[in-house]
Amino acid sequence: MLLHQANPHGGDVYRHKIRLDYSANLNPFGTPPLVKEAIIKASECLYQYPDPYCEELRKTISINEEVPMEYILCGNGAAELIYSYAAATNPGKVLIVAPTFCEYAQSLYNQEAEIDYYYLKEEKGFLLSEDILDKINRDYDTVYLCNPNNPTGKCVPYALLQKLLRKSRVLGIRLFVDECFLEWVNGAASLVRDCKEYPNLFILKAFTKSYGMAGVRLGYAICSNRELLQRMSEASQTWNVSTPAQFAGIAACKCEDFFLQAKAHIEVERNRIINYLKSRNITVIDGEANFLLLKSDKNLYDELLELGILIRDCSNFNGLSKGYYRIAIKMKEENDLLLEAFSSIYKNV
Amino acid sequence: MLLHQANPHGGDVYRHKIRLDYSANLNPFGTPPLVKEAIIKASECLYQYPDPYCEELRKTISINEEVPMEYILCGNGAAELIYSYAAATNPGKVLIVAPTFCEYAQSLYNQEAEIDYYYLKEEKGFLLSEDILDKINRDYDTVYLCNPNNPTGKCVPYALLQKLLRKSRVLGIRLFVDECFLEWVNGAASLVRDCKEYPNLFILKAFTKSYGMAGVRLGYAICSNRELLQRMSEASQTWNVSTPAQFAGIAACKCEDFFLQAKAHIEVERNRIINYLKSRNITVIDGEANFLLLKSDKNLYDELLELGILIRDCSNFNGLSKGYYRIAIKMKEENDLLLEAFSSIYKNV
Repeated sequence: MLLHQANPHGGDVYRHKIRLDYSANLNPFGTPPLVKEAIIKASECLYQYPDPYCEELRKTISINEEVPMEYILCGNGAAELIYSYAAATNPGKVLIVAPTFCEYAQSLYNQEAEIDYYYLKEEKGFLLSEDILDKINRDYDTVYLCNPNNPTGKCVPYALLQKLLRKSRVLGIRLFVDECFLEWVNGAASLVRDCKEYPNLFILKAFTKSYGMAGVRLGYAICSNRELLQRMSEASQTWNVSTPAQFAGIAACKCEDFFLQAKAHIEVERNRIINYLKSRNITVIDGEANFLLLKSDKNLYDELLELGILIRDCSNFNGLSKGYYRIAIKMKEENDLLLEAFSSIYKNV
Repeated sequence: MLLHQANPHGGDVYRHKIRLDYSANLNPFGTPPLVKEAIIKASECLYQYPDPYCEELRKTISINEEVPMEYILCGNGAAELIYSYAAATNPGKVLIVAPTFCEYAQSLYNQEAEIDYYYLKEEKGFLLSEDILDKINRDYDTVYLCNPNNPTGKCVPYALLQKLLRKSRVLGIRLFVDECFLEWVNGAASLVRDCKEYPNLFILKAFTKSYGMAGVRLGYAICSNRELLQRMSEASQTWNVSTPAQFAGIAACKCEDFFLQAKAHIEVERNRIINYLKSRNITVIDGEANFLLLKSDKNLYDELLELGILIRDCSNFNGLSKGYYRIAIKMKEENDLLLEAFSSIYKNV
């Protein structure tokens, strides 16, 4: 919870009077009916404490992910697991591939870790290149990366991930890979299959974005280092995952069709938006997730907000300057309104 | 979340086939209908992230508690706030009044704090006495106490609390007071009114026990030290309080009548159970909360479990030996079954 500081993230619809929220990257199809039903069912079981072991939920995830249940730790949103990972690993020095989600760094400030950044460059399409392999050395305890990356939407090539895994294992470095948006990517190359062989690998996943459950708070980690998961669990309270979240997660595991329809929709709309923006000479990074990074000399944040549309001003991302903005991809009718708004802003260009 | 360790708490109904759970101290009237309705309403808003500032909820609590909204920090259950308090204060040495709720110590292990214990004695009725004032000195960063105490149900006299507050302020010691069960006490003397004058005072409260919401996870802290609350908020993720929890908390604030009826019921049943147990020569501590601490030479945990009743074996409380058990106070018909079970166990005594 944020108290007195400004919310550094998108999705703050509570302090903006808006028509359309393009600042948070959520499933535009909303919450699956089965998940809503699960929440309603949970309303009859609130009297009791939730299962601190999340046993049924972890069983269900383990079947879906095809990994042993012992590899899975659930959290109050993926965000909580970022903090308990930092607390449990307590690193001296880490490398973060930037620009990226700011909660990794925030969680490390609490541990007083030294943070180095590997900056992705726009001129290289924000792609991670093999020179990161020369950059990592035994001084680092952990390398953090997000695949596909937030806010660029770019993926790390699978071959490079494999090289990173091997080199980091040899050097005794942990590899933290946030795959929270990976399901949106066509032909996505997840590292889940590599967990068994690489106990230094830690994968973060969430139900939030794929199943319209951001309000419920549910994420999970996959890692074969049970001792690490144990330390993370000890760094958190006993009942961190609520009963509604556990019920909703079990239901979400049965909603693959709902997600696949949303994914197919996102692909169509992503291409349409990219083509439209490019035709208007607006710089857009052709990311592969359910959001897009734009660059503009105009103050898109203020101009769109005036039209009732909230987007993510990315100037507070370490590694991005003023002029970068992130937009979600929503339903066709909503995207039409967004593109109309762009038209009106760029009409004199 | 617990992973591989044994659950040290009560309420684990997920791994016990039981008829009656007497191990968790919850409102026997269950969840107020308004709170259930709030959860169902929340099921329509799960798509978005929760408000990271919990603004409407904190406003509602601030009216109920008659303190400024800036004094309030919400958490994913009171338990989360115990952990973020430990992280934000990062104490060198603390004093814990024991036996008590084990999460205080657990949260401090993560900070590698040195822990001293002030042990409450059965021969003194587990009452905190004035000699604690001699025990505290500048070596301590924080004093932890629970009022009424879990598992004894005994309260700290208001005059002693005032002396503790004054002395700890003079010595620069923080005072952590867990009031999660205080609403159940007749004529309860809360320290909430003292927060303004004593910025070293930190009060923990929860909706869990009073409003049948243990599964939702919602607690809050009251403290006039805004810098501390800020540090606690930075030690947690941004969206730690779920949308269902925020909706449920706002609804619970309107359910005072529901709670007062439950409280009146608890008082009647508490007296009835105490009198029954005493008439059978079973040692019972006459606590003032919605649970009771017993002492027995019999293995009450196993014997009652055989009859389908789960109680809390308190032998893992630091400061209690084998033979202590805690029971909740439930509905009359349930309590009748419990007392019948006691009768059958003690029939030969």
